[in-house]
Amino acid sequence: MTASPQSPADLYDLLCHRARETGQFTAILGLLEWDERTKMPPAAGEHRAEQIAFLAGQIHRRQTDPELGGWLAELAESDLAADPHSDAGANIRLLQRDYDRKTKLPQELVEELSRLSVVGQQVWAAARANDDFAAFLPVLEKTIALKREEAAAIGYDDTAYDALLDEYEPGETTANVARALEGLRDALAPLVQQIVGSEHGPSDEILRREFPVDQQDAVGREAAAAIGFDFMSGRLDETVHPFCATAGPRDVRLTTRYQPHDFGDAFFSTLHEAGHGLYEQGLPPEQFGLPIGEATSLGIHESQSRMWENQVGRSRAFWQFMLPRAAKAFPAVLSGVSVDDFYAAANTVAPSLIRVDADEVTYNLHICIRFDLERQLIDGKLAAADLPEAWRAAYQDLLGVTPPNDAQGVLQDVHWSGGSFGYFPTYALGNLYAAQFFAQAARDLGDLDAMFARGDFEPLLGWLREKIHRHGRRYSAAELVQRVTGRPLSHDDWLAQNRTKYGELYRL
Amino acid sequence: MTASPQSPADLYDLLCHRARETGQFTAILGLLEWDERTKMPPAAGEHRAEQIAFLAGQIHRRQTDPELGGWLAELAESDLAADPHSDAGANIRLLQRDYDRKTKLPQELVEELSRLSVVGQQVWAAARANDDFAAFLPVLEKTIALKREEAAAIGYDDTAYDALLDEYEPGETTANVARALEGLRDALAPLVQQIVGSEHGPSDEILRREFPVDQQDAVGREAAAAIGFDFMSGRLDETVHPFCATAGPRDVRLTTRYQPHDFGDAFFSTLHEAGHGLYEQGLPPEQFGLPIGEATSLGIHESQSRMWENQVGRSRAFWQFMLPRAAKAFPAVLSGVSVDDFYAAANTVAPSLIRVDADEVTYNLHICIRFDLERQLIDGKLAAADLPEAWRAAYQDLLGVTPPNDAQGVLQDVHWSGGSFGYFPTYALGNLYAAQFFAQAARDLGDLDAMFARGDFEPLLGWLREKIHRHGRRYSAAELVQRVTGRPLSHDDWLAQNRTKYGELYRL
Repeated sequence: MTASPQSPADLYDLLCHRARETGQFTAILGLLEWDERTKMPPAAGEHRAEQIAFLAGQIHRRQTDPELGGWLAELAESDLAADPHSDAGANIRLLQRDYDRKTKLPQELVEELSRLSVVGQQVWAAARANDDFAAFLPVLEKTIALKREEAAAIGYDDTAYDALLDEYEPGETTANVARALEGLRDALAPLVQQIVGSEHGPSDEILRREFPVDQQDAVGREAAAAIGFDFMSGRLDETVHPFCATAGPRDVRLTTRYQPHDFGDAFFSTLHEAGHGLYEQGLPPEQFGLPIGEATSLGIHESQSRMWENQVGRSRAFWQFMLPRAAKAFPAVLSGVSVDDFYAAANTVAPSLIRVDADEVTYNLHICIRFDLERQLIDGKLAAADLPEAWRAAYQDLLGVTPPNDAQGVLQDVHWSGGSFGYFPTYALGNLYAAQFFAQAARDLGDLDAMFARGDFEPLLGWLREKIHRHGRRYSAAELVQRVTGRPLSHDDWLAQNRTKYGELYRL
Repeated sequence: MTASPQSPADLYDLLCHRARETGQFTAILGLLEWDERTKMPPAAGEHRAEQIAFLAGQIHRRQTDPELGGWLAELAESDLAADPHSDAGANIRLLQRDYDRKTKLPQELVEELSRLSVVGQQVWAAARANDDFAAFLPVLEKTIALKREEAAAIGYDDTAYDALLDEYEPGETTANVARALEGLRDALAPLVQQIVGSEHGPSDEILRREFPVDQQDAVGREAAAAIGFDFMSGRLDETVHPFCATAGPRDVRLTTRYQPHDFGDAFFSTLHEAGHGLYEQGLPPEQFGLPIGEATSLGIHESQSRMWENQVGRSRAFWQFMLPRAAKAFPAVLSGVSVDDFYAAANTVAPSLIRVDADEVTYNLHICIRFDLERQLIDGKLAAADLPEAWRAAYQDLLGVTPPNDAQGVLQDVHWSGGSFGYFPTYALGNLYAAQFFAQAARDLGDLDAMFARGDFEPLLGWLREKIHRHGRRYSAAELVQRVTGRPLSHDDWLAQNRTKYGELYRL
């Protein structure tokens, strides 16, 4: 602890220096995780888990250091913190927020949750493989109990779920999210029924032809580069589950996966991860390690991936640009295919059991189900033992499908086993934010389709950089949406866009 | 600082815990450096340099922590340290050695050397590119002055060079190395003259045919796996300069480089790095992060790479096993080639200007020249300004070649620009250790050639694991050579092996 009085400016420099050092550890952690999933030799896994736990412990120790808390308390009183959205004001305010959140949790609870998360994921993986929900139930019950303890330690105004949601979507409330998602659900269910009932649905047969993997990789890279992903500051590798990892301010790594008879899986995964990557590459590098150098929420992150995947990548205009390029790589299966036919094939809708395989439209219903169920679990309105039955009823009700077993039902996702309650809604929020931002970009920029059709994505990317990326965490998701679009979060734009698009494709 | 008295066993546990944590950082550093040279996006270099410097600083801080020094002082008096070669005794003794060495250096000198090393390598790279020794001279002079300061801070009995050599070859003395290398040089120079004068030299034309790079990669992997490199605990990638990096106890990463018209360059580089990798994979994993889990010296490390590259990989018996496999991969250029012809092609000797391209025989003369010159520089017997002239004279004298310029002469190696004085002799020591160990292995194991010819490398690897690898730093290089071979370091075995081999190949 330093005893001598220091000027706020000196103290802020100290604070930034400390945070940047912690940011180095976080970036290194990003590399360790990327390496684990892409390059690491198989036998190294056990030691890598120790490395990651050790580094995570170092980061936690630094983030909860009482000296840091002392600096923050002093700086909060200074002029530097007067404007909460200035660089210094935002950094001080958000480091304070992170410090408070982390120091509110008793060390024992943190360690118990961390241990349970590791065990929980192992137990869940076995339970899913054996379609044995009963085997997962005890660990799920214990996890829910600990998450309630976590919420109580952090504190909340309205519902315990608020405190959990706040970790992933800072400043957002359960009531507000529920308003948006329940409104979406009520409007979406009939739209899906209409689509399912249509006799004019397109087929995705074109995408199921034979697409050699090497050319898929080349076309995916071409598309990612075309929308602006900078391969000098990033790379693309192959993994089982696509992801985007950051190992430094100019080091953003995407992964995707290739299947020879499914062009869409890899291509739209690549666009999706490239969308995440564009956000990471657009954060201000000079603020790396500080809050302004970080993404503001999972929902906003997902809005960037979804916009490039769906609003851009599944548009007719995009394929006016991209199809001739893809046809050059796959002349045997794509020569003679029209833009309209390809566009239709890339936009088929069918209710299904598995979230990660769902189309753009039904995806949100999968999220509504999870959001609803996990709130009830946390609030104690639903017993974990009754979850499979509630799951089946919800799927039958909203999607018209019933899981034949729990492996394809309630056991399909890893999130709950690792304690990630409050994470699911950010996927749907991402879709809504994406639609709302995109509608605003069209108002601000003019004819986006004309730009996409000639491969000009720079205006849209520049707009996103200016309005969203460069601010990092300066504004919360809710503030950002209000600032950028002049309105609060709503499902209106998403519904309008999809009603038009699928109304035309399915002749509703 | 802990005030309560603790049992030596408890204190030793604390010590080990601390050292293992530091070992985690060191392993992560290994991964960062591997990634930088293999996978990292180009624009990420600046930040990676900061990451590496930050992590190196964290490691240094931990290794020089006064609390660690207190523990070591207390443990040195305990029964645990009584046997200097027991697990605990060796770990305590060697951590003490490292602590003493690092804490003897003033922090200012460490930082000045670190800064100068970065600048020095940049200046050197430009000077080499422009063939401009004068541009490099000031930084070289400054480096030499600082290395003398370093030696003075560390202390030495005989010559300042002792203190520098000791960093790379702990416990070894300049006088002892000089005895071995000068004896080698005096016997080797006439052997090279004989070889050069022979009218019966083989040609390496076979190795200069067209070898498609993908198959080179497959054959290199097959050979590395055959000698025992475990790809479950390691991998092989492509880089400009081959190296071996360790990122964990079961995570050893090799690199090599492929040229379509030089089969030997990649193949023997792969064997060489696999030899380093086998040593790393043979260190006791339960001692990872502790001295017994580390290699004992650079010379011993090089002995492992050189033995697999030269004593094994350039033997006739090895190619009895390997040539049919290589011919299957390269039928167009290798079918019909005899083992004798291939073996001869893999063992051509020709004095040349560049160390890293030198053959097995003349390589040691390149090292003798550097060892001689760098000792004179450190002792002040040679002014840095006179180095190019001394270099040319030595090359003319020992190898019969004269560099046409400094870029291909005194500026060819990076070592001095980074302050690595005392490093060069470990390359030649590695050759001598390799020969001495190999001669002993042949005495202990019987007909090694018969084993190699049938692809059975397990007896030799098992012998190395038992005699050398599993001990880590328990014994110094000098102790190890004495224990394993019953004799001190000598150039006798190296000379005997090479006189026989090249006498036959060149009909001397």
